[in-house]
Amino acid sequence: MTAHLLTIGDEILIGQIIDTNSAWMSRELNLRGFRVVGKSSVSDTREAITEGIRHAAAQADVVIMTGGLGPTKDDVTKKTLCTLFDSGLVFHQDVYDRIAAYFEKIGRPMPESVREQAMLPERALILTNKVGTASGMWFDSAGKIYISLPGVPFEMEYLMTAEVLPRLQARFPGRPIVHRTLLTVGAGESAIAQRIEAFESALPPHIRLAYLPALGQVRLRLTGWGAGTRSAESLAVLEQEVEAQAAVLAGVIPEIIFGRENETLEQVVGRMLQARGLQFGTAESCTGGYVAHLMTTVPGSSAYFRGAVVAYSNDLKMQLLGVPEQTLLEQGAVSEGAVRAMAIGALDALGVDVALSISGIAGPDGGTPDKPVGTVWMAVADRRGGVTAVKHIFGRDRAKNIHLAGVYGLDLVRKNL
Amino acid sequence: MTAHLLTIGDEILIGQIIDTNSAWMSRELNLRGFRVVGKSSVSDTREAITEGIRHAAAQADVVIMTGGLGPTKDDVTKKTLCTLFDSGLVFHQDVYDRIAAYFEKIGRPMPESVREQAMLPERALILTNKVGTASGMWFDSAGKIYISLPGVPFEMEYLMTAEVLPRLQARFPGRPIVHRTLLTVGAGESAIAQRIEAFESALPPHIRLAYLPALGQVRLRLTGWGAGTRSAESLAVLEQEVEAQAAVLAGVIPEIIFGRENETLEQVVGRMLQARGLQFGTAESCTGGYVAHLMTTVPGSSAYFRGAVVAYSNDLKMQLLGVPEQTLLEQGAVSEGAVRAMAIGALDALGVDVALSISGIAGPDGGTPDKPVGTVWMAVADRRGGVTAVKHIFGRDRAKNIHLAGVYGLDLVRKNL
Repeated sequence: MTAHLLTIGDEILIGQIIDTNSAWMSRELNLRGFRVVGKSSVSDTREAITEGIRHAAAQADVVIMTGGLGPTKDDVTKKTLCTLFDSGLVFHQDVYDRIAAYFEKIGRPMPESVREQAMLPERALILTNKVGTASGMWFDSAGKIYISLPGVPFEMEYLMTAEVLPRLQARFPGRPIVHRTLLTVGAGESAIAQRIEAFESALPPHIRLAYLPALGQVRLRLTGWGAGTRSAESLAVLEQEVEAQAAVLAGVIPEIIFGRENETLEQVVGRMLQARGLQFGTAESCTGGYVAHLMTTVPGSSAYFRGAVVAYSNDLKMQLLGVPEQTLLEQGAVSEGAVRAMAIGALDALGVDVALSISGIAGPDGGTPDKPVGTVWMAVADRRGGVTAVKHIFGRDRAKNIHLAGVYGLDLVRKNL
Repeated sequence: MTAHLLTIGDEILIGQIIDTNSAWMSRELNLRGFRVVGKSSVSDTREAITEGIRHAAAQADVVIMTGGLGPTKDDVTKKTLCTLFDSGLVFHQDVYDRIAAYFEKIGRPMPESVREQAMLPERALILTNKVGTASGMWFDSAGKIYISLPGVPFEMEYLMTAEVLPRLQARFPGRPIVHRTLLTVGAGESAIAQRIEAFESALPPHIRLAYLPALGQVRLRLTGWGAGTRSAESLAVLEQEVEAQAAVLAGVIPEIIFGRENETLEQVVGRMLQARGLQFGTAESCTGGYVAHLMTTVPGSSAYFRGAVVAYSNDLKMQLLGVPEQTLLEQGAVSEGAVRAMAIGALDALGVDVALSISGIAGPDGGTPDKPVGTVWMAVADRRGGVTAVKHIFGRDRAKNIHLAGVYGLDLVRKNL
């Protein structure tokens, strides 16, 4: 099955918002074996929408539209669809009642426009939107499918997940498809490719590997395609096969794999700390609190994260973390001695079992021939004994250096647990 | 002038990357008075590119393509363009020499593919890429303009800024256009709209106001359109007019405006601290170091930012910030008493002149009937005397609450300076 994604509305054409919807939709369609052959954006006028739909339908089996359905813009997209598919609008009491209940639940008065939003094309299958007021619409016409969804990301995601994708899978069963994603940290794409070359070339032809790189992290996604059409049985067999390959892959590069599927590094580190009953804290210089911020984005992190000292100035490194002045004078603030002393000092200052310290030169200024911009020292101290310190040399970009130092710092904690 | 933006490549169609390029390009074109009438994405095959270009050119005066020019994919886009515009490829010694010099500068061996990248269509105007290896190309054909740029964001931005936009402005001078953006914090779009209603309705017809909202901040952009065609003189007159309106607007809502154009709140606060010779630090609970992180994203922030105490646990609020146990027992950690004590304690603990403290319930758990999720107390203490504390009630989303608390916290510092 092929799909074309069509976004409707000026917000995207004037660059006021970035189109994250169609990336999300492409990913979800792809994961189910559907192929997105084109994307386009048009203005919310009758002519532009009509021409956009024609162009999309010439390319693909399914046209999925987003946007142009808000209470103030309702008319144009809906009326254009009615004209195209030769349909009238009818009042849907059930839709009206659901929206009324929604407004009652959130405790706001119901606007007049709700009546309009319950007027929907009689020839469309109505897709119930349980998280907003604009319904989705599904038209079958001349062998093609046309789907219209609201543009608000969480409403679109709800309707895709609950209504659209299951229907598309029932309509176009296709081959079974299974994914497993392993999450790595601390190694680049090409370094990983070298290490797993033998694994990759030994993969059977129906299982493929994709590299999905981000700054400091690479996701490795195995996708298996079964023979015949999708069934519970064929999926189970394929799942076993892909899972077995994932286990082999994990065995080749065990130390850089930190998790699976949609986990984050901070979630994994948090879970490890909690499972071991350990309290954690950070002593940060160049990262300026970024690691503490990452750790506390996780709900429930107060169970294992006690706090942090951000010692941007050398005075504070001495006063709050007990770093000896001698160390700073002799080795400098970006040194093995400094991060060791910071991490050990943080154990007591924060009353924690494990502490991470980071000190580096984020840039753009402050580099020297000895310690260029991007030089970062970090250490993990464990109350049960032992301090591990490592040095990294990242790049010249301040924001990237802060991010990489944070990610590699969390990875150092993970390796020490 | 109208433009259509065409992205080439499968990365976008499979949802592997989010298309931030076309939002950037739309914004920059719009700011210059050019109108983007459509956007589309196609796969990097000859057929898809050819059909994509035809469809785009039917809509607009200018087609701007991005992507499909990397050293490994070089051929298909370039060859398709050659076929479409009936052009051969010729070797460009100057391009080759420039790329060779580029590799020498970054200290890497030059790959074989560079020779290929110096083979460029003889009928194209070559746009010199000083930040990468793929040249831009500009074709004039049958009254339309076709521009091909690399897809790497900073290379695209370089070529647009240095080569494409100035040429388009020379070719389509259009009316003079001038923008002024005022940055606000701490008030919602509808609250601002009410306060500036009289200003807005008194605007002359050739000056328009746009609201560009983000979480906790709203940018107000005034755009003036002059009569006749663009000239240095007509621009200067228009600039004066728009500037005068911006001054009037600033006078209506002075206390929520923190800056102009592309500044960030953390830059503005940093500059104010530096100008006053003040040292600053934070005592954070629910924001978990986010404010310290924001402050230290600014290059040179060590001149005024000394550090932070992230006291996620109550123990640390007492030990590191000297918050009295009594206060925590009687009022709780999320209270006026707690944030006042935290801010005053931070003055000494961090040795700073001004300190910001924040304590709240970020969620999703931890709310009570008295203090629902989203309740955040914050205070600013100034060594020269005075503590100001305020309470906010944000929403139910953890990430948004952390962000809003950080932004409103920085704004509280700004107001106290």
